[in-house]
Amino acid sequence: MYSECGKAFIDFFAGAGALNYGHNNDYIKNRIVDYIKNDGLTHGLDMYTVAKREFMETFVENVLKPRKLDYKIQFSGPTGTNAVESALKLARKIKKRPEVFSFMGGFHGMSLGSLSATSNRQKREGAGVPLHNVTFMPFPFGFFESFDTLAYLEHVLSDSHSGIDKPAAIIVETIQAEGGVVVASASWLQGLREICDKHDILLICDEIQVGCGRTGTFFSFEQAGIVPDIVVMSKSISGFGIPMSLVLMKSELDIWEPGEHNGTFRGHQLAFVGAAAALEYREMIDLEGAVASKEQYVRSYLEEQVKPLHPGIKIRGAGLIWGIDLTEAVAPSAVEEIQQQCFRQGLIVETAGRADSVLKIMPPLNIEMELLEKGCLILRDAISSHMYAETVI
Amino acid sequence: MYSECGKAFIDFFAGAGALNYGHNNDYIKNRIVDYIKNDGLTHGLDMYTVAKREFMETFVENVLKPRKLDYKIQFSGPTGTNAVESALKLARKIKKRPEVFSFMGGFHGMSLGSLSATSNRQKREGAGVPLHNVTFMPFPFGFFESFDTLAYLEHVLSDSHSGIDKPAAIIVETIQAEGGVVVASASWLQGLREICDKHDILLICDEIQVGCGRTGTFFSFEQAGIVPDIVVMSKSISGFGIPMSLVLMKSELDIWEPGEHNGTFRGHQLAFVGAAAALEYREMIDLEGAVASKEQYVRSYLEEQVKPLHPGIKIRGAGLIWGIDLTEAVAPSAVEEIQQQCFRQGLIVETAGRADSVLKIMPPLNIEMELLEKGCLILRDAISSHMYAETVI
Amino acid sequence: MYSECGKAFIDFFAGAGALNYGHNNDYIKNRIVDYIKNDGLTHGLDMYTVAKREFMETFVENVLKPRKLDYKIQFSGPTGTNAVESALKLARKIKKRPEVFSFMGGFHGMSLGSLSATSNRQKREGAGVPLHNVTFMPFPFGFFESFDTLAYLEHVLSDSHSGIDKPAAIIVETIQAEGGVVVASASWLQGLREICDKHDILLICDEIQVGCGRTGTFFSFEQAGIVPDIVVMSKSISGFGIPMSLVLMKSELDIWEPGEHNGTFRGHQLAFVGAAAALEYREMIDLEGAVASKEQYVRSYLEEQVKPLHPGIKIRGAGLIWGIDLTEAVAPSAVEEIQQQCFRQGLIVETAGRADSVLKIMPPLNIEMELLEKGCLILRDAISSHMYAETVI
Amino acid sequence: MYSECGKAFIDFFAGAGALNYGHNNDYIKNRIVDYIKNDGLTHGLDMYTVAKREFMETFVENVLKPRKLDYKIQFSGPTGTNAVESALKLARKIKKRPEVFSFMGGFHGMSLGSLSATSNRQKREGAGVPLHNVTFMPFPFGFFESFDTLAYLEHVLSDSHSGIDKPAAIIVETIQAEGGVVVASASWLQGLREICDKHDILLICDEIQVGCGRTGTFFSFEQAGIVPDIVVMSKSISGFGIPMSLVLMKSELDIWEPGEHNGTFRGHQLAFVGAAAALEYREMIDLEGAVASKEQYVRSYLEEQVKPLHPGIKIRGAGLIWGIDLTEAVAPSAVEEIQQQCFRQGLIVETAGRADSVLKIMPPLNIEMELLEKGCLILRDAISSHMYAETVI
Repeated sequence: MYSECGKAFIDFFAGAGALNYGHNNDYIKNRIVDYIKNDGLTHGLDMYTVAKREFMETFVENVLKPRKLDYKIQFSGPTGTNAVESALKLARKIKKRPEVFSFMGGFHGMSLGSLSATSNRQKREGAGVPLHNVTFMPFPFGFFESFDTLAYLEHVLSDSHSGIDKPAAIIVETIQAEGGVVVASASWLQGLREICDKHDILLICDEIQVGCGRTGTFFSFEQAGIVPDIVVMSKSISGFGIPMSLVLMKSELDIWEPGEHNGTFRGHQLAFVGAAAALEYREMIDLEGAVASKEQYVRSYLEEQVKPLHPGIKIRGAGLIWGIDLTEAVAPSAVEEIQQQCFRQGLIVETAGRADSVLKIMPPLNIEMELLEKGCLILRDAISSHMYAETVI
Repeated sequence: MYSECGKAFIDFFAGAGALNYGHNNDYIKNRIVDYIKNDGLTHGLDMYTVAKREFMETFVENVLKPRKLDYKIQFSGPTGTNAVESALKLARKIKKRPEVFSFMGGFHGMSLGSLSATSNRQKREGAGVPLHNVTFMPFPFGFFESFDTLAYLEHVLSDSHSGIDKPAAIIVETIQAEGGVVVASASWLQGLREICDKHDILLICDEIQVGCGRTGTFFSFEQAGIVPDIVVMSKSISGFGIPMSLVLMKSELDIWEPGEHNGTFRGHQLAFVGAAAALEYREMIDLEGAVASKEQYVRSYLEEQVKPLHPGIKIRGAGLIWGIDLTEAVAPSAVEEIQQQCFRQGLIVETAGRADSVLKIMPPLNIEMELLEKGCLILRDAISSHMYAETVI
Repeated sequence: MYSECGKAFIDFFAGAGALNYGHNNDYIKNRIVDYIKNDGLTHGLDMYTVAKREFMETFVENVLKPRKLDYKIQFSGPTGTNAVESALKLARKIKKRPEVFSFMGGFHGMSLGSLSATSNRQKREGAGVPLHNVTFMPFPFGFFESFDTLAYLEHVLSDSHSGIDKPAAIIVETIQAEGGVVVASASWLQGLREICDKHDILLICDEIQVGCGRTGTFFSFEQAGIVPDIVVMSKSISGFGIPMSLVLMKSELDIWEPGEHNGTFRGHQLAFVGAAAALEYREMIDLEGAVASKEQYVRSYLEEQVKPLHPGIKIRGAGLIWGIDLTEAVAPSAVEEIQQQCFRQGLIVETAGRADSVLKIMPPLNIEMELLEKGCLILRDAISSHMYAETVI
Repeated sequence: MYSECGKAFIDFFAGAGALNYGHNNDYIKNRIVDYIKNDGLTHGLDMYTVAKREFMETFVENVLKPRKLDYKIQFSGPTGTNAVESALKLARKIKKRPEVFSFMGGFHGMSLGSLSATSNRQKREGAGVPLHNVTFMPFPFGFFESFDTLAYLEHVLSDSHSGIDKPAAIIVETIQAEGGVVVASASWLQGLREICDKHDILLICDEIQVGCGRTGTFFSFEQAGIVPDIVVMSKSISGFGIPMSLVLMKSELDIWEPGEHNGTFRGHQLAFVGAAAALEYREMIDLEGAVASKEQYVRSYLEEQVKPLHPGIKIRGAGLIWGIDLTEAVAPSAVEEIQQQCFRQGLIVETAGRADSVLKIMPPLNIEMELLEKGCLILRDAISSHMYAETVI
């Protein structure tokens, strides 16, 4: 996809999901360059500007209206963690309850409020203070696959002696990306929505890594037919790797007072320009259709070409985010070796999950089929050659 | 400085300090446009890239070496609050103490960790949870002007029955910008540094709003002759209103483990390109010299032309950040009216401080003298006309 | 057992477990009266006194030595919650970790530290602040009976992404008395001890309600063959309803510094006198043997005479603490009616558990068989007559 | 006052204030012995009993009515810290604010909620967790004597940027006993009451050590002519060194729900019997008059005989609680030596304050004049002989 020092690489990482439309997408790039060259305002704080208005109009027309979603848009700062912080604040303010539920395996950011909702122990220890006001619930994965996690959630909320205080909100990723590409089923998400409704709890969907078309649809939660109360987005929303994030909230939830959550970089105009262009670009090339066919290819390839390499290999994913879980297939150190072999062969791929033992496939959504196929081949070869080595030893 | 819908405005706000080199500075702009057009990498996470290396080299050569500062650079995410969060984490991790001291009037950000160190009550109430692990100390201003705030600090640390636990760090702004352009004296900052040394406490200097040359020197703390242990920077560091922030730490303090504080947008390459260009631009036009002469002008103007308008008016500032404190000179509602009159006359000026009763003058550092003079005149007229009205009533 | 206004009552409550040796036990009473009449010191803070020394010697000789337990004794204040607070402090200080695990259904006291470990939601809401640093784990009861709670605990501790920080200690009741007389099995307690050992976590056993012979043996945990690291005792330890509590800790865990946990009433001499007398009294009448035969009687009676009254009735208990769980057998309001009918018939019995739907049988350990039988009969009749009523309606 | 191993001692400590009516007061003792011998109920939880009713009637008639105080009485558990915990809970519940203010030098107990309000650093470090929701304010003593602490308090509450959140309550000792017998003036307490009224904050008076007549009047706050919203009492309330504590609250503040703050030992009947007897005893011997004359004696003695020994000696106190502050008069180690010399001469005296450098005189209120004089003489000699030694060296 891009080259450095002359060498060509296929990118199966896409800037941790910030480059869903590819590196330096020409359509978006031209719009940004034009804007800069025309001396468009670059920095606008939270004031209304032309670029902001155009983005908002495009977002409403192209994204919200077709999906019959009645969200208000908050620009909470340029990073995902800013958006998560803002969403948690809002939820606590609305419900007047300090507690929030998050899920084991979940990742929501590194500033103190978001970190409290992040499950990774190493990251939590970096806080230097005990992290409070978030309780972790089991996610339907691994140890909990044979366990009714929704019944557990319901029990904990209903039992007057659970010791767990009623939360303002439950924050969830439909696919735990950092957690190892762990996919929540549609029925599970629907059940979660019902529990929230029953107990007067807000459902916050963290779409930072899996939104913006990554799973096929623009929002990942669409596929489950649910509507979260609050949505946080970032990464690819600007379409060009420019920092930008959004909080979407149901209209009736907007109880912010002026200046209650502010910040300098909430009005980065280049991001608005890029974001509007990206939304146009999506429609222009029928990105959803393209992802659907590529998903089909990757799914088949992984099931038919990769999974059979070892009985311990597990394949999980949707759209163009896939995880090859090697936990039970290779030694812990081998995953990094596979990753490095891929790199030497010209493929960038990242790891995720406990002990970083899941290879995460996350190419730009508009990757050419030829490159996608070539990347898959490199990946398979790297795993395969390692399997042989494993067996020999 | 810039126009919208045809109307020309003089900007005394500079994007809350994010546009110290002016709107759409040509030198920086060209470098960014060239970079984009040459399809330079835009998004690099925390990997080493050409743009990053060039920024770091320039920063070391142009900023750190001439000042004999031995700081390591951490890219903690694009916003000031990300940098503050990172600095607080690091300090707590180093000293193994959860407590941090901040100052009354201080502003450090809106995510949970930074918000805990922010004194503004309205913003704090937005948290939805009690804010912990930060204790507020008196800042030498207003009620505390006749009070030995350093002696208080020393007492609280020394008294075994103060009830206040020893902090890992003290975070301070040399000038509390949001707090109403409240300037700490050099001797006070030196005393603070001594207290930190004596009690084994880290000194964190928040240069987000007053760094990058705003006070004349690159770092505002230089003028006091002190060296903080940790410095947080943002706003104008990218030189083009692009989100970017830095944490500088004394080399021996870098005890981060890999991945302990991460984030998607720590490697926004356009920001690196802009930031390197900005540092070159500074030197090229001798910005420090230019600010010195403009400071002289503004100081004289305010003292001689504005202060005499009313005995209650107070003037505070340094470099090109100045506050006209009208708290005791006009009715609370009048400040907003003055601000609006300025706007109608083509001048953008922001308010700050308790009850927003301080007019904050913060033009781009490279503002043309003619515009600076014209802006001052508009400002004076607006205050003046309001004074008359006041007197009549 | 005692009378008021002339009416005789059989007591199946025993002062919430504070009167295991009966009301106004003559043996203990005489010792206390003699002590007072001889002008023995009544108040001794934490100084060494004759009464304290005699209690400690008796406790070591009669309780610890025969059980080969090497505990140091701390007098942490007169109430159970003081002892729990002290135990939690000590555990956190030893392990340098703020977190503690407690169990759903558990009750450990009402001061802030203990309340954090108490699961009852209504009690928790009384705190007025969010309660921190305690995470609740499932207890093998009700919803969790078909669930491997130890495997859950092990998973949460082992999973690097559980979001749950490693605790300093796990605090447990062998029988959750307030929680509805919920009995943990010996194998479960052994598994818990193994998990604590494996993960370097202290095991705190809260014997406040079920210690002092209530379950047959002096300590309730003896029957599972485990040795907790820390034990908290109160209620019947003084033998006469006088406030007193103890913290027992393995010798090597005593890292208290002088005065680090103090209080005025840690040296109530009447309590020491009563406590020493109570320990003598226990041996003198072979209390353990007596409880064993009464347990046999109550168990049979409940299984054969009460349980058959309704298929929803559940019987749980050990020694002389038994719960008749009517949750699925009668309407919620009916339990209080049964309790009142008992009272009218001369039997005092308390309720416990979720919705107070468990009748808790907890007579003095030295109750005469005749009264025990009579009390059981009253209880059975009250439940029975209510059952009929239920059925008719 | 009492003897051990044959040796007679004069007691200037009075069980840390728990023995205001002397050791083994005959009047109280006989009532308790009679009660026990008549097989009065000893343990009553929170049920209404004869002994409880008699205490409450006596308390209302003898204490509240003559002072025109309309307080409801809560039995919150037997220790002072239980009462403080209960008062803090209630205040937070009423005002729906988590924050509480306490004072530097203040001591309120050792369980987690009370410890948060205790200023002693060594005790705080024993918590093992960061202590939250309490902010410490300067008390008018030492460093703060030349500082307007009430103006500081008012400023912190009024300043929208103080960073200190509005508290539910301010908890204060009229005399900081553990803090070194530091006396708040009547005008300061009146000012504090006014600030609480102005800002809708509850005033909690901690009378645990200085109530029950210790300062001359039954409540120490009476002398300042103020009425706290909530009062916590313990120590001498039972009159016989038996654990007992009370929370008094203005009637309209009783918003407790049933069982929201409970505990096993809230109904220790021997304490009620003793407490009622103690209140009768007080009146019978005109204790207030007796204390007034003894206060006169001690004050004169200390001012005329002790203070002149060294210019650094400071004398503080009221009623029969006095502190001889030797901080600036002798070496730190000397205070313990003085205390030990007193002990050898037959006088028990305790130390308090920072570095334990204040000798605290706190005899039983009914001490015989002869013993009081003799004790003062021993004390003076011990200090004096030490002064000489100091001078020689």
